[in-house]
Amino acid sequence: MPRLAEAVDKLSAFIFDMDGVLYLGDVPIKGAAEAVAHLRKKGKKLSFVTNKSTYTRREYSRKLAQMGITAHESEIVTSAYGTSIYLRRRSPGAKVYVVGESGLKRELAQAGFKLLTDARAEEADFVVVGMDRTITYKKLTSGLRALLAGAEFIATNPDPIYPTETGISPGAGATIGALAGSSGKRPKVIIGKPSPQMIKISLGMLGSTPRETAIVGDKLETDVLVGKRVGLTTILVLTGVSSRPDAEKVRGTNMAPDFVIRSIEDLVV
Amino acid sequence: MPRLAEAVDKLSAFIFDMDGVLYLGDVPIKGAAEAVAHLRKKGKKLSFVTNKSTYTRREYSRKLAQMGITAHESEIVTSAYGTSIYLRRRSPGAKVYVVGESGLKRELAQAGFKLLTDARAEEADFVVVGMDRTITYKKLTSGLRALLAGAEFIATNPDPIYPTETGISPGAGATIGALAGSSGKRPKVIIGKPSPQMIKISLGMLGSTPRETAIVGDKLETDVLVGKRVGLTTILVLTGVSSRPDAEKVRGTNMAPDFVIRSIEDLVV
Repeated sequence: MPRLAEAVDKLSAFIFDMDGVLYLGDVPIKGAAEAVAHLRKKGKKLSFVTNKSTYTRREYSRKLAQMGITAHESEIVTSAYGTSIYLRRRSPGAKVYVVGESGLKRELAQAGFKLLTDARAEEADFVVVGMDRTITYKKLTSGLRALLAGAEFIATNPDPIYPTETGISPGAGATIGALAGSSGKRPKVIIGKPSPQMIKISLGMLGSTPRETAIVGDKLETDVLVGKRVGLTTILVLTGVSSRPDAEKVRGTNMAPDFVIRSIEDLVV
Repeated sequence: MPRLAEAVDKLSAFIFDMDGVLYLGDVPIKGAAEAVAHLRKKGKKLSFVTNKSTYTRREYSRKLAQMGITAHESEIVTSAYGTSIYLRRRSPGAKVYVVGESGLKRELAQAGFKLLTDARAEEADFVVVGMDRTITYKKLTSGLRALLAGAEFIATNPDPIYPTETGISPGAGATIGALAGSSGKRPKVIIGKPSPQMIKISLGMLGSTPRETAIVGDKLETDVLVGKRVGLTTILVLTGVSSRPDAEKVRGTNMAPDFVIRSIEDLVV
């Protein structure tokens, strides 16, 4: 029995990064739906994670359904949802000023947080900052004033950039940088990968230990790194950002994956 | 003869920071017009500087005229103008993508630079970044792509924040931070104080040596610091940001002013 098959057999839970593993933008990766169905049939528990903060879990569940992948809303962890869980543990019902998109705002509102308007931003307990394609000077001003008034700086995820159909575009790093560059403060907590927060939330939802869980991702510096940090089995797919030579370069470091597979299809073992 | 009077007598040129020295926002500081007229009558050469990049020199000349202060456009150095002079020396007629306001764009266009549209941003030789109250995700995307395509990162000034009637607001530091946080690059050159670039341009226009020139400013960490760096006589006024206790705290450092005066009025000696 080959090593990968043996490992898959022993593992009881899989955490899938979505973009680059299940799809590229809006295009499903060949065999992804079948691989997910196969693992479900084998009784594996599944979780689907993304550093994106711009859509809700329901929206991701729908997106996957359109690709033939069954993933219940409750199995999905976005950095927006991760942030809402993190803050709910820290300070349920707290006052939050958001510099981010509507998906992030909806997740936080659903979780019972009081979202502040610009006029009342300075009352915020937390300033939550994510990627924001609707950024304005007014929002940055409110976020800055809230931070200077003592609100805690929370970032949904650290991604500086992300690829789009038209080219590389600014990620949460742009919004974080704008607020850091004006306030002189840095985020106290970052929820997304490679910070372990989001993966720990995922494990909690799965009810699984790191030992029995694998993370399947396409990026060495986020997916594999966070997997190693938390103690998961790490599986790199080559359908996204990182390549086999990239994986060879990091051999012996905390970004070296346990397994490198061509595609999620190879999990059908 | 008191020490200040003696110094003023010997000096042949004065560089005035504007905000906090000649006015606060739109309110002139008492006696500013008379003090400037007095120094002119004594034959002193004058220069008026600001780290702001959002208005042209002509606009500042008009603003001062409304306060009864005569300052010809050719005596004014903004960080936008300083940037245009700096770039003209480096690379006349270069292609520039601007993340900033219309005053900065006008200065650069007047200086003969080719300002690129979003669609052609990636052809830029330089990305010039200043304070931008009209910031959008589209501009940040174009600036990011230009930087990733190899354009040089130039910042008009480093100010993280600035005071307004409604409260503290984000300065150029927010725009710089957004591009740094997404591109992973930092500005290669910053024109405004406390970087010496702008003051050197001012000296060139005055035709004066540092030895015979004073800088009059309200901020220890920009005006006095840059004065010391360039070798000017440094005069702190107490009508703006820094206070007498602030000045005492920095005694013995490169931010300690040669003279502390209550107001520009005290230069009428």
